[in-house]
Amino acid sequence: MDDAISAHELSCWLALAHAPGVPPSMLAALAAAPGTITSWFDNLRGPGLAGIDPGLSRYLAAPDWSGVESDLRWLDAGGGTILTFADPRFPELLRNIPDPPPVLYVRGRAEALASPQVAVVGSRNPSPDGVRQARQFAGELARLGIGVTSGLALGIDTQAHVGAMDAGGVTIAVQGCGPDQVYPRRNTGLAERIIERGAVVSEFGAGMPPLSANFPRRNRIISGMSLGTLVVEAARRSGSLITAGYAATQGREVFAVPGSIKNPLAQGCHQLIKQGAKLVAGIDDILEEIRELGVRAAAEPVMASQGQCKREGLDERCRLLLDNIGFGPVAMDELVDQTGLAAGITASLLSSLELSGHIEILPGGRVVRR
Amino acid sequence: MDDAISAHELSCWLALAHAPGVPPSMLAALAAAPGTITSWFDNLRGPGLAGIDPGLSRYLAAPDWSGVESDLRWLDAGGGTILTFADPRFPELLRNIPDPPPVLYVRGRAEALASPQVAVVGSRNPSPDGVRQARQFAGELARLGIGVTSGLALGIDTQAHVGAMDAGGVTIAVQGCGPDQVYPRRNTGLAERIIERGAVVSEFGAGMPPLSANFPRRNRIISGMSLGTLVVEAARRSGSLITAGYAATQGREVFAVPGSIKNPLAQGCHQLIKQGAKLVAGIDDILEEIRELGVRAAAEPVMASQGQCKREGLDERCRLLLDNIGFGPVAMDELVDQTGLAAGITASLLSSLELSGHIEILPGGRVVRR
Repeated sequence: MDDAISAHELSCWLALAHAPGVPPSMLAALAAAPGTITSWFDNLRGPGLAGIDPGLSRYLAAPDWSGVESDLRWLDAGGGTILTFADPRFPELLRNIPDPPPVLYVRGRAEALASPQVAVVGSRNPSPDGVRQARQFAGELARLGIGVTSGLALGIDTQAHVGAMDAGGVTIAVQGCGPDQVYPRRNTGLAERIIERGAVVSEFGAGMPPLSANFPRRNRIISGMSLGTLVVEAARRSGSLITAGYAATQGREVFAVPGSIKNPLAQGCHQLIKQGAKLVAGIDDILEEIRELGVRAAAEPVMASQGQCKREGLDERCRLLLDNIGFGPVAMDELVDQTGLAAGITASLLSSLELSGHIEILPGGRVVRR
Repeated sequence: MDDAISAHELSCWLALAHAPGVPPSMLAALAAAPGTITSWFDNLRGPGLAGIDPGLSRYLAAPDWSGVESDLRWLDAGGGTILTFADPRFPELLRNIPDPPPVLYVRGRAEALASPQVAVVGSRNPSPDGVRQARQFAGELARLGIGVTSGLALGIDTQAHVGAMDAGGVTIAVQGCGPDQVYPRRNTGLAERIIERGAVVSEFGAGMPPLSANFPRRNRIISGMSLGTLVVEAARRSGSLITAGYAATQGREVFAVPGSIKNPLAQGCHQLIKQGAKLVAGIDDILEEIRELGVRAAAEPVMASQGQCKREGLDERCRLLLDNIGFGPVAMDELVDQTGLAAGITASLLSSLELSGHIEILPGGRVVRR
């Protein structure tokens, strides 16, 4: 499978990335076959724009090519990777949210985005208990091969990233600014560490400052890449509740850690639990739902380029992988060699096979049959 | 309305109180008209026993008249009041549980049982936070005219009773022993105080010691008299969870106060919340459900002798009461004088009118129109 796309095709996707409100149906149509977006862009100025939102239509008549150029400069300078919506490495769960971004700007290991993920978010000013809980839950998730996704903010977000990495796992930070900057600056060192082990991602093009208006939008990416969102300490009316709200809208699980009713930072969590979030007193409370979700997600229609491994009716590539996995551990690289599948696809299918109970992914990434 | 029953009728009810497993349908049939139980008991030895459980049938052929005599001695000595299932003062909600007792032995103010009640139960060894929470919730309920029902145990139960009384409200203790004793002995002084302001009740006849086997049964009375049961601190596998379980089985609300996930006494509460109990972070969380429940309870069929006040289609006695309640406060005694309704009925109807939002019961018991 060749994931490379032409420079013109990438430019078209980047032009779309700077457009206002691109509907997901349009993204799916453009991603359906290689080259669709270029012929579509080339014909934009002619007829065929009927039915497109007027704002988007106006934008498409004069796209932000300077924004595209600055993105390409960032890319050429080795800033990272750009995953278009059509890229098989574009996170499958994020593809299915009501308003997915046309592209993701990624610093670090793009393949990290194929991990099954749980978001861990919370207060910027947590209590010592909250700090401990965020680290512990993130560490336990990471040790189980689940990526920990958060927002790189101070407080709980930071603890979640650190907890996952200290446990030897994968973590993903979603930013509310362009891929060429880090916010908050104080977390520059942390971002560098995350880039080595996982990924720092954003939907905002190079040069976009960390505008406060970007942050609520950013939160939908955090929840959108994740099977569920765990809130560890959050005040009433806080950003974490926005993330939890997105998770619920996206049909993902919402998890919340309760606390003493006299702790103001437990109020947000209690509010979520009253609204139906799952009370989390221990890691098992998360795992119960995630296993269910994994099976459920696998049963839903997915893009042809990805496929998933259901408990029954495994798709061909899942069978191919399973045929190459024995009861002794095998490394993912070996599987890639043996099957000829792309590394990103392999990682994604393995996650799916693990969630459906067929295999177990061991610490270090080797896999065995169950 | 004449609530008095003949000595023979009372003896028959007491004989039934000492019987094993009397089905509620039988209790309802016997309570349908005065004298039913006496003619039924008088004919027991003849035909007409078909369909009755063999154990009950054997008992009825030779009832525990010595137990009845010891109950009557307790009554004659001024020990308290005996409310039969047929008595209009028998708590309406308790009448509707799957296995109501044939009689209640009451020390103190029998009319207290007509209050809308919320049970507050929990650990015998609470943390300082639990102690504070039990007192506070009980006090807030009491100030709103809601009786606080509990089990007279040490710890949370004790705090609930004390909190309600300190707030000038009504509290009801349900015992797992006969009405002639107090368990635990250490709470003898508390029981005396409760008898003055509220009631100490039991389904067990005079002389019954506080057998451990009685306590789970006792818990169904606590939840059964209450609109809902609030659990404040409970370990996994504790008696409070039994009470909560009864509440759920009885179709009543279950409330639980969350706590830090590192507090072992929060585990029982967290378990309940995961099972569907309402998380209670403040009194409003209880009131929301209780108002709903009050309306719902009013919409259900109730005994003709009691009646309830729905939001629409008020029954005649509710109208009569409302006609005598103005926008200035009026005492319940005045309403009893003006309407000719019995005090117990009046209290019950006023509770119902308050729950349906027609009136407000002020601290001290006076009422005003809303």
